[in-house]
Amino acid sequence: MKRVQRIGALMEILSGSPNKVFSLSEFCSLFGAAKSSVSEDLAQAREITRLTGLGKIETISGVTGGVRYVPFISEERAAQCQEKLCRKLREKNRVLGGGFLYTSDIMFHPAIVKEMAQVFARKFSDCGADYIVTIETKGIPLALKTAELLNLPSVVVRREAKISEGATMSINYLSGSSERMQKMSISKRAALSGSRALIIDDFMRGGGSVRGISDILSEFDTEVIGIGVAIANISPEKKKVSDYCPIVYLGHVDEETKEIEVFPNNQIFQKSAL
Amino acid sequence: MKRVQRIGALMEILSGSPNKVFSLSEFCSLFGAAKSSVSEDLAQAREITRLTGLGKIETISGVTGGVRYVPFISEERAAQCQEKLCRKLREKNRVLGGGFLYTSDIMFHPAIVKEMAQVFARKFSDCGADYIVTIETKGIPLALKTAELLNLPSVVVRREAKISEGATMSINYLSGSSERMQKMSISKRAALSGSRALIIDDFMRGGGSVRGISDILSEFDTEVIGIGVAIANISPEKKKVSDYCPIVYLGHVDEETKEIEVFPNNQIFQKSAL
Repeated sequence: MKRVQRIGALMEILSGSPNKVFSLSEFCSLFGAAKSSVSEDLAQAREITRLTGLGKIETISGVTGGVRYVPFISEERAAQCQEKLCRKLREKNRVLGGGFLYTSDIMFHPAIVKEMAQVFARKFSDCGADYIVTIETKGIPLALKTAELLNLPSVVVRREAKISEGATMSINYLSGSSERMQKMSISKRAALSGSRALIIDDFMRGGGSVRGISDILSEFDTEVIGIGVAIANISPEKKKVSDYCPIVYLGHVDEETKEIEVFPNNQIFQKSAL
Repeated sequence: MKRVQRIGALMEILSGSPNKVFSLSEFCSLFGAAKSSVSEDLAQAREITRLTGLGKIETISGVTGGVRYVPFISEERAAQCQEKLCRKLREKNRVLGGGFLYTSDIMFHPAIVKEMAQVFARKFSDCGADYIVTIETKGIPLALKTAELLNLPSVVVRREAKISEGATMSINYLSGSSERMQKMSISKRAALSGSRALIIDDFMRGGGSVRGISDILSEFDTEVIGIGVAIANISPEKKKVSDYCPIVYLGHVDEETKEIEVFPNNQIFQKSAL
């Protein structure tokens, strides 16, 4: 393979498997090239990612070392993603009874989900999570895409214990807004013991669900090291969890005029005060 | 930008948005290069995809024309994916009571889901679907990843009508195996009228769920043009749908010895007889 071909192939292979570590020797045997040549190719590939701004090629030293492609979204592109999400959420025909909004088309749209996941992948890139956890149903695409970008496995908490989950741990919890009792369960085979979890969900009002996930994970000695939600309602101000990161905030929804107040979280990439 | 940089950037951008059509002029303005240069770069990029075998760069002519990256999995890699899935499914600790298998770790693992989605993206690349449809919960990641690769929106049928779905259409149906009555519902806002749907799900036994999806879609004049399932049980032989494509077949599950019979669908890329 010619040099330009090797570099193009590197870009395709690395960016196609975000955060997966490839050893130099894998590329040497794939390209039939010497280590010194592949090293030079990688330097060029690194320069290309600087120009496109879509990712970063990082070198990991040591025996298990190699290179990996870390997806990157600039603050400018993240702000555009937030603005687009706000615009979509303000569409008047989203207003349902009880102040609810129809968001399934957004949460199940691969391209929109991908952009939101890129924001979370940047936010939580160094959080050290072993797993991504979500609760069914609408947060699953966002959680899975974030997991793909961070190269992590994921666990989905179910509303009801299913026969196909085997033995499960269940809790009853109070949903934050309605104070209604709800149930959630997690398979014992999900094997989370002693690990660190990043919770990703589509929507947070009172924080009851996320608090429930956190409680159920603590039964497995799993620590929650981050919480990302696509949309957080500004009320109630006091949530059942303290440290969470929304992409956008949802304010007042007027059922008469169909006006929907939505605004971006401008502090999204700032370190938490906690 | 230098030529090698433009080609590397093309690989990163095109492969990062599968099946999205980019116009030549987008790249001209991005790179500050003439159309003739970008055309030559694209010819090189096309040659690179031939060497890696991971995708194809196709040219679409006409006013709305441009280029797009179509992900590609070779028959050899598809067979490896099937074999890997078989190996994982044969793990003895998957056997639950009633002959059920624990598969959540597989269906929620981004890397495994991605490979299965690549198989479906090849199988259904020219099927002309407008949407991908699945039913909650375990098929969602596979359906969404297939939708991402085919650049299609997706719709998730719910087990119960939720307030956040707005007005819904519901049906009761008989699950294929247990003949138990179940319910499914779809939001009227999912706006499927008069379109063509590809159904993707994680598991099929009797085909009752998929038949239910098909029935509920027909209420919206939506035609089902393909059915892909990760795992199909070989029994009952007579399913409630006739034309479906599994990645692997599940045979006998022995609850005593924990032996699980799984084998690949060797005809996966063959045209259906129907």
